[in-house]
Amino acid sequence: MNKSEIDSAFARLDKGRSHFLRQTPILRLPGAAFQVAAAEVWLKLEHLQVSGSFKARGMLNRLLANPIPAGGVIVASGGNAGIATAAAAQALGVPCEVFVPAVCSEAKRARLRTLGARVVVAGASYGEALEACLVRQRDTDALLTHAYDQPEVVAGAGTLAREIEHQAGLPDSVLVSVGGGGLIAGIATWFAQRARVVALEPELAPTLHQARAADQPVDVVVSGVAADSLGARRIGAIAWEVTQRHVKDALLLPDDAIRAAQRWLWSELRLAVEPAAALGVAALQTGAWVPRAGEKVCLILCGANMDPASLG
Amino acid sequence: MNKSEIDSAFARLDKGRSHFLRQTPILRLPGAAFQVAAAEVWLKLEHLQVSGSFKARGMLNRLLANPIPAGGVIVASGGNAGIATAAAAQALGVPCEVFVPAVCSEAKRARLRTLGARVVVAGASYGEALEACLVRQRDTDALLTHAYDQPEVVAGAGTLAREIEHQAGLPDSVLVSVGGGGLIAGIATWFAQRARVVALEPELAPTLHQARAADQPVDVVVSGVAADSLGARRIGAIAWEVTQRHVKDALLLPDDAIRAAQRWLWSELRLAVEPAAALGVAALQTGAWVPRAGEKVCLILCGANMDPASLG
Repeated sequence: MNKSEIDSAFARLDKGRSHFLRQTPILRLPGAAFQVAAAEVWLKLEHLQVSGSFKARGMLNRLLANPIPAGGVIVASGGNAGIATAAAAQALGVPCEVFVPAVCSEAKRARLRTLGARVVVAGASYGEALEACLVRQRDTDALLTHAYDQPEVVAGAGTLAREIEHQAGLPDSVLVSVGGGGLIAGIATWFAQRARVVALEPELAPTLHQARAADQPVDVVVSGVAADSLGARRIGAIAWEVTQRHVKDALLLPDDAIRAAQRWLWSELRLAVEPAAALGVAALQTGAWVPRAGEKVCLILCGANMDPASLG
Repeated sequence: MNKSEIDSAFARLDKGRSHFLRQTPILRLPGAAFQVAAAEVWLKLEHLQVSGSFKARGMLNRLLANPIPAGGVIVASGGNAGIATAAAAQALGVPCEVFVPAVCSEAKRARLRTLGARVVVAGASYGEALEACLVRQRDTDALLTHAYDQPEVVAGAGTLAREIEHQAGLPDSVLVSVGGGGLIAGIATWFAQRARVVALEPELAPTLHQARAADQPVDVVVSGVAADSLGARRIGAIAWEVTQRHVKDALLLPDDAIRAAQRWLWSELRLAVEPAAALGVAALQTGAWVPRAGEKVCLILCGANMDPASLG
């Protein structure tokens, strides 16, 4: 992965942007609002992106960068990757199949159907749904999207960093939540050597941490409040390579701090986000990450796909 | 009311801005997202303002523009005006009393207390709470803030329009929700003769409409989904004067369209706002307001003080 792949993704996405992707705004607050010495904290409101998460960027890039077979597009995910794939396919007018495990709620299935996707319930776990998805893909030759470990998906996510720099200039540090690592791979590729990119993981979903301990990507048991969107079992190969080169700091955060930060974002800022999007605030509020005096810290609010009743 | 009062308010607020008020971002979408011919729709995310509504601007301006007596600040309101007054008083470190009627929920009272206010429950209705508040004010000589009909409050609201022009340039039209009219008075004063300012009211809270029918401000029976924040009984004297000069268009919107727009803002854009903030979207989606081809329409999302569970 390199910066020019992100430039290419940006050019590709920009053509269709006025009808699909949004340039999400940045809310700038003084460091004092988080009781840190940073001059400014930038909240990149990417949870306002089409499909309710940053993943729309990567999925649209994947679809635009490849010929779409008659079988359309296929993905295994009941979460943000599935929603983003369905939304991108709908925008391009191509058929889409989404494989989900039986645990996927009816609300999520209904949302996928609203986006025009054919929802296939297969198996009890994500692993089983994926297996069924791959079998089907061999039959239909549909274009497979992966939640985080495809170059087009990572480059699409990287356009988020490019957009931040265009909107507000270069931050000193950028705090990014990590599940499979697609987002941080794109962000760290863009900001390489120019801003300090910090990885944030829930204690209960430590894919990057465990990979670092083992010196290679390994399967991890994941759970906790953010597992819905940060619940990848293993850091992606692309993310592993990029973070080894460009990400020094990787922090773990407890679930209670994540939930407290999510609730604070609602009560103080009226930002309704999913737990995964609250890790940056949690890192500042717990002191897990202490910005230097006067610096500009950027937090990526990466998604908002949750039940708003959970904010009360 | 004139533009120079808004410039003065801006200068006054700007000094304390880094520690209190936020410059709220604008989300720009293509007109197609609302199925209108406008080139762009700007959503001014003022519901992300301190205190969860635009009223923080006016209340802070009122407090900064006047000497604060030993008795502090006093207001009668269980809604956005009370919250904003308490927040501004807390920021300036002055005492604050908020008079609310018995119908004010314990959740709202608790929020006011969290902001450092002394909450006084007085009477069964807003009118009785106001009466008790005015009696107390004569005893304490506290500075009284009014939800919409004081020059400093209107000028503070007008800084919102000044900020939009600074951020994005001049829109062609601006759609503004009206209750007592403090917001539209500030907005229309700033944009006078330079952008078309359109007044939006719920059918069930038509203060401006009834005033126009009677050719003077009159008391109105108010109810409906937005009465919590647009439930003023009568258009303010300042708003009446300003809208007579600068606002030609005044539209009424039914409650079901307002609720549908509020839910759409959540489901499609992940913006959690109160019903009063959804009138602009309702006006576009119902065709009550049809922008011309190619124009830039600005909607003010004015507040977000509601139970997020109501969005589901």
